[in-house]
Amino acid sequence: MGKTIAEKILSAKSGQDARANEIVVADLDFVMGQDGTSPLAIQAFEEMQGDGPFDPRRVAMVIDHSAPSPLEGVSRLHAKMRDFARRYGIILYDIGEGVCHQLLPEKGHVGPGSLVIGADSHTCTYGAINAFATGVGSTDLAAGIISGKMWFKVPETIKFVINGRLPKGVYSKDLILYLIGDVTADGATYMAAEYTGEAIKTLSVEARFTISNMAIEMGAKVGLMEADEKTMEWVRKHTDRTFEPVEADPDAAYAAVKEYDVSELEPQVAKPHTVDNVVPVSQVAGTPVQQGVIGTCTNGRLEDLRVAASILEGRKIHPNFRLIVAPASRQVMLDAIREGVLQTLIEAGAAVVTPGCGPCVGTHNGIPSDGESVISTANRNFKGRMGNNKAFIYLGSPATVAASAITGIITDPREFLK
Amino acid sequence: MGKTIAEKILSAKSGQDARANEIVVADLDFVMGQDGTSPLAIQAFEEMQGDGPFDPRRVAMVIDHSAPSPLEGVSRLHAKMRDFARRYGIILYDIGEGVCHQLLPEKGHVGPGSLVIGADSHTCTYGAINAFATGVGSTDLAAGIISGKMWFKVPETIKFVINGRLPKGVYSKDLILYLIGDVTADGATYMAAEYTGEAIKTLSVEARFTISNMAIEMGAKVGLMEADEKTMEWVRKHTDRTFEPVEADPDAAYAAVKEYDVSELEPQVAKPHTVDNVVPVSQVAGTPVQQGVIGTCTNGRLEDLRVAASILEGRKIHPNFRLIVAPASRQVMLDAIREGVLQTLIEAGAAVVTPGCGPCVGTHNGIPSDGESVISTANRNFKGRMGNNKAFIYLGSPATVAASAITGIITDPREFLK
Repeated sequence: MGKTIAEKILSAKSGQDARANEIVVADLDFVMGQDGTSPLAIQAFEEMQGDGPFDPRRVAMVIDHSAPSPLEGVSRLHAKMRDFARRYGIILYDIGEGVCHQLLPEKGHVGPGSLVIGADSHTCTYGAINAFATGVGSTDLAAGIISGKMWFKVPETIKFVINGRLPKGVYSKDLILYLIGDVTADGATYMAAEYTGEAIKTLSVEARFTISNMAIEMGAKVGLMEADEKTMEWVRKHTDRTFEPVEADPDAAYAAVKEYDVSELEPQVAKPHTVDNVVPVSQVAGTPVQQGVIGTCTNGRLEDLRVAASILEGRKIHPNFRLIVAPASRQVMLDAIREGVLQTLIEAGAAVVTPGCGPCVGTHNGIPSDGESVISTANRNFKGRMGNNKAFIYLGSPATVAASAITGIITDPREFLK
Repeated sequence: MGKTIAEKILSAKSGQDARANEIVVADLDFVMGQDGTSPLAIQAFEEMQGDGPFDPRRVAMVIDHSAPSPLEGVSRLHAKMRDFARRYGIILYDIGEGVCHQLLPEKGHVGPGSLVIGADSHTCTYGAINAFATGVGSTDLAAGIISGKMWFKVPETIKFVINGRLPKGVYSKDLILYLIGDVTADGATYMAAEYTGEAIKTLSVEARFTISNMAIEMGAKVGLMEADEKTMEWVRKHTDRTFEPVEADPDAAYAAVKEYDVSELEPQVAKPHTVDNVVPVSQVAGTPVQQGVIGTCTNGRLEDLRVAASILEGRKIHPNFRLIVAPASRQVMLDAIREGVLQTLIEAGAAVVTPGCGPCVGTHNGIPSDGESVISTANRNFKGRMGNNKAFIYLGSPATVAASAITGIITDPREFLK
């Protein structure tokens, strides 16, 4: 019997013949924490009396959730991370560097076949470049920092075959929202998702990240894609290290195979307060919204900002609307400036915040007020997610957020396509 | 007996022969509140049962102190400001527009001879363009919004004659710090400062704003300069309205005249925890600093960012240092991008935050940790000012902050001049 991508990577990294539902202990290629989770991991590290990291060059801490710090207590936690990083020589990405899930691929820390843990739910993002990458808690992170190993229950795999090509004005964000709406928030619990098919192959690597990023929102442990020429080219741009792509065997065993055709998909919106509460944009068009967010580990990449700028170019955001733009990283911000994309957004009325997570996770940089509705490119719309449990969060693509910014109501972006 | 600039403006606006120490009621040209003070002013407005603003086009509220909002409670206050602005048709500058004291001159709301009150200490900034502009409390702001009038005790004037030209690497920030150190924090209490002399005349209008901005730090009510051709050109660039420059009479009565020669002035630094604790940079050079701030109503203009970029170009900030850059306004940010200045700062390692006050006033965007030292271009270094009363704040010019960012210790910027 052949193997899925998940089984193959866990086999290679554990030196065992890893099959679904077995427990393996595997070697980690990279270990990451952010400023919401690292301080607890450092505490656990101390309690475990760790001598030091297994390999300081394969451990990173990223200050992205509250960057720069909005609160004295947070500043103390940041200081703790900086001290730890200096003491043990691990990699620290400080304020202004960007969101961890943008940085790990961008800085070349991860590639096809990598096994990565991160103390953040959306670590599954790197599945888009063929890495088994998954979120862990702070205690597991501490154990990973010390040992460079982690135990895994090998996940079963659910295969998503996405046929057709996305129509104009419909993006990978719409696709993944649609899938999550279909399989529901716990439809793939503890499974590996494998995304394949024409729709995936025709997407850019940037667009693919959006899909893998949200695998966790259907309960999946990882959201894997095969590495094609686009993947390898993207990875080569970001590191000189070489990676071996990992393909699923034709006779791999899947828990389920689900087929879709997206050639007539509409833009999708997730309504409050769950990510799987998904409807076509037409069903919520006209809903007043007071704030928009374009950014986050889901949709803060150059391509996302480009799409938003193409809609906002020469236009102004609605006077009753605030548009917050958070480039996913320093590099994305510089690239967006180089292309004139950031200027277009600023001229349209956007408030650009420091590359980081802020508004998405409700730590700062755009907490909505009571009763306000927000349309965001983020991956979660839970009650209170953005820092106010009396606010309402709708999720959509950067195009949908940009179009809604112009009108002040949820708007089908196809109305504004040039 | 002739009149000072302050006496002349208050005479014109009150229709009386206003002399020092008299009380006059005068017509206001513009009235402003920010998000720290406007919510209380709105409450006072309601208690006064105000029918509405005297002229909605001459009342502005600016969301700059916490922009975008870092806290749910702050978001509710912002919502209150937005509601008030919509209800009465006053001007609202929402998140991303910038710092109030940059916006009022930049948007052409103030010019030579204007009488302006603002519910913010540093409203005296506009004295640089020959306006009598001063800070008031929230209750006075409410009265001003309703009536368009305000009572003033006409201030005595202390005249500062600044001879000589600032040497290379020494800026208007160094000059005003030096003056404050000399006259002390209460040396000009409730007086008008008039700044004149060769050093002032040779400065750009942008550099002059820095000096008037800090008049309050010597206790002065306003920090006035005469309007010269540079002033009028600057004002014409920002509004079509015409203004009549107001000059002091040669025989005006001054409480004191103080003369300085700045042709050999060193860069200056204000040490914790008072603004008048000023020393030449050589006396504090070598002090470790962990964070820097370039921005604020004192030094967040294009010229300031240019100076910083000229020092940081092709260099990297010290690994143990965080550099926060807050452009003073949307326009400054766009101009800094157009010139490549912002890119240079980002490439050097700066974290750019949304145009606004954040780090300076300790509301968000860069609260230091316990025991940390910060070098900032702001105007205040009081204990706790940046949100942590266990931190230490040094004030200097953008050049001094940029140079210190490279070394991680307080550094004379002349070491890095090209």
